[in-house]
Amino acid sequence: MTVIEVSASKNYFVEIGSGLLPTLGPKVAALGKVQKVCIVSDSNVWPLYGAAADASLHMAGLSTCAFVFSAGEESKCGATYLELLNFLAENRLTRSDIIVALGGGVVGDLAGFAAASYLRGIRFVQVPTTLLAAVDSSVGGKTAIDLPAGKNLAGAFCQPSLVLCDTDCLNSLPEDIFRDGCAEVIKTAILFDEPLFMELVRDGLHFDRERVIAACVAHKRDVVHADEFDRGVRQLLNLGHTVGHGAEAMSDFTLSHGKAVAIGTAIVARAAAKRGICSQGTATRIMWLLEKVELPIFTHHTAAELAQMALSDKKRSGDTVNLVVPEAIGRCSLLPTPVDAVEEFIQAGL
Amino acid sequence: MTVIEVSASKNYFVEIGSGLLPTLGPKVAALGKVQKVCIVSDSNVWPLYGAAADASLHMAGLSTCAFVFSAGEESKCGATYLELLNFLAENRLTRSDIIVALGGGVVGDLAGFAAASYLRGIRFVQVPTTLLAAVDSSVGGKTAIDLPAGKNLAGAFCQPSLVLCDTDCLNSLPEDIFRDGCAEVIKTAILFDEPLFMELVRDGLHFDRERVIAACVAHKRDVVHADEFDRGVRQLLNLGHTVGHGAEAMSDFTLSHGKAVAIGTAIVARAAAKRGICSQGTATRIMWLLEKVELPIFTHHTAAELAQMALSDKKRSGDTVNLVVPEAIGRCSLLPTPVDAVEEFIQAGL
Repeated sequence: MTVIEVSASKNYFVEIGSGLLPTLGPKVAALGKVQKVCIVSDSNVWPLYGAAADASLHMAGLSTCAFVFSAGEESKCGATYLELLNFLAENRLTRSDIIVALGGGVVGDLAGFAAASYLRGIRFVQVPTTLLAAVDSSVGGKTAIDLPAGKNLAGAFCQPSLVLCDTDCLNSLPEDIFRDGCAEVIKTAILFDEPLFMELVRDGLHFDRERVIAACVAHKRDVVHADEFDRGVRQLLNLGHTVGHGAEAMSDFTLSHGKAVAIGTAIVARAAAKRGICSQGTATRIMWLLEKVELPIFTHHTAAELAQMALSDKKRSGDTVNLVVPEAIGRCSLLPTPVDAVEEFIQAGL
Repeated sequence: MTVIEVSASKNYFVEIGSGLLPTLGPKVAALGKVQKVCIVSDSNVWPLYGAAADASLHMAGLSTCAFVFSAGEESKCGATYLELLNFLAENRLTRSDIIVALGGGVVGDLAGFAAASYLRGIRFVQVPTTLLAAVDSSVGGKTAIDLPAGKNLAGAFCQPSLVLCDTDCLNSLPEDIFRDGCAEVIKTAILFDEPLFMELVRDGLHFDRERVIAACVAHKRDVVHADEFDRGVRQLLNLGHTVGHGAEAMSDFTLSHGKAVAIGTAIVARAAAKRGICSQGTATRIMWLLEKVELPIFTHHTAAELAQMALSDKKRSGDTVNLVVPEAIGRCSLLPTPVDAVEEFIQAGL
């Protein structure tokens, strides 16, 4: 087991390793003062791991209830959020009780925002069951729901009290979903870690899970430590996301987040090479790795379409968008781009 | 004009006085970096003060949009909240833009929670137009919506960037609504300020507005400074509220918040006297002042009904509820009460 401590507005541990799910109960009880736990999960994950999570909590002397919603990004909406809030109220969770988010990014984002706002904030524990959630969304305290107008447009910064990542849970992941998580792993490598990039080039999808997840979490921990509220360096984590969110929205969310990020990353890499921000070799290596794990690197949408969607994204501040661009593998920077120059930039990378 | 500085997770000024509304524009612009302002208001307030607010913002060089919803507590719900979030997104407010809450407590709570969560938080300015909002809800950063299961059950702690209280706006208040605000003024006096209590006994509804509002805001500032996140002394501000929320919920929100608080305050005062926590004279003085401003002090609901509603209130933490009880005029304390003893306590005060 690897344990990483995150220091933010709240300090907490991320535990990564095999066989951790059965330890959930004692670890939640050890957080103190809790009587009731609401497990939030989706229709894919609950049948696989719900019983084990529930039993572990019960054996630790906690009472439980479970809110299980239809799997899929379309559930990360205002309606499910309000349903969950009311479920918590009907089950009379108090300020000292805890939510456990058992699932992938959608579960964690939704449960985290509900925890941030129910009674103006109760504690929550992340139990990521997808690679994407393990390396990215479960750590750092960004929670959100989608609005009709765009992805992740409402939410809160709210750190979990514990992240418990049982790498065995990844065994049940369909390869395609595992691949989605790889997009965030590759993103992390491009941002901060050339040796990790080389390891992925060598191992493809068959990398050492505990070690690679821990490496990604450690990088994210450093970023969150430096900029919890996303005013500066944390924006680097948006590599591939601003344009990717555009592709995701254009597809009406039929394109997965991971694949959208892969496309977004490839577009900015090509555009950066064309602008001389990175070498052509860097862009080629990025595309080569994305293709090695069978992630897409092209889209049929136009630059105008992608730019329009990217501009309704929340990263905008006034008339400028901070695009994240690679300078080399392991080193990226923020490129403040006037709103009306975004389309041209994307066009260069299509 | 009286200016009070609040020091919390964010520092800001509360400005109280006559003729302040026309200064809204320059003051919002002076907060910096803002381009667009969304005015949130309701169908009662917008026709009275919307044009003045909008003109002032325009003259200061800001672009504006307005979200106006049906006046009434029933609008402080999840549906209006989601509508408002989507309105902000459709109007492309960015992280540097600002929401102005122009109205009473419902407007401030709803607009504040939307500001706290839109893009994970943008700035907002409170322009209270009711006495209740001026003395209580506009200051201190508690924002919320109601859920079907109860009042204020979801929300955020989020401080405004400025509170601009134009006492002229209170001129248009129906006397009955003004009276509702008096319940919070009387609450503040019972909690912290016997001279203020005596002044209200003398002046009834005809007190000096700027001075009394400023006194209430100063007391609230001290409490928020000591306990922004409601873990200790801030719970004192719930005097009359735990039982009052019960009465409000039992009436299906046809009873106003102010009247519910008055009833709740009277019930705990009588119960406190019966238990020897305060003198009978103290309880009598409290009831006398509430009746002087024509606020109700009795309810036809049973102790069992009120207790059940009070226990679904968010103040509960595990098996205990902190009831606020008067020891004397100007001095109150928290009385940790086991959940199953709440009904008996209420019964003593009916």
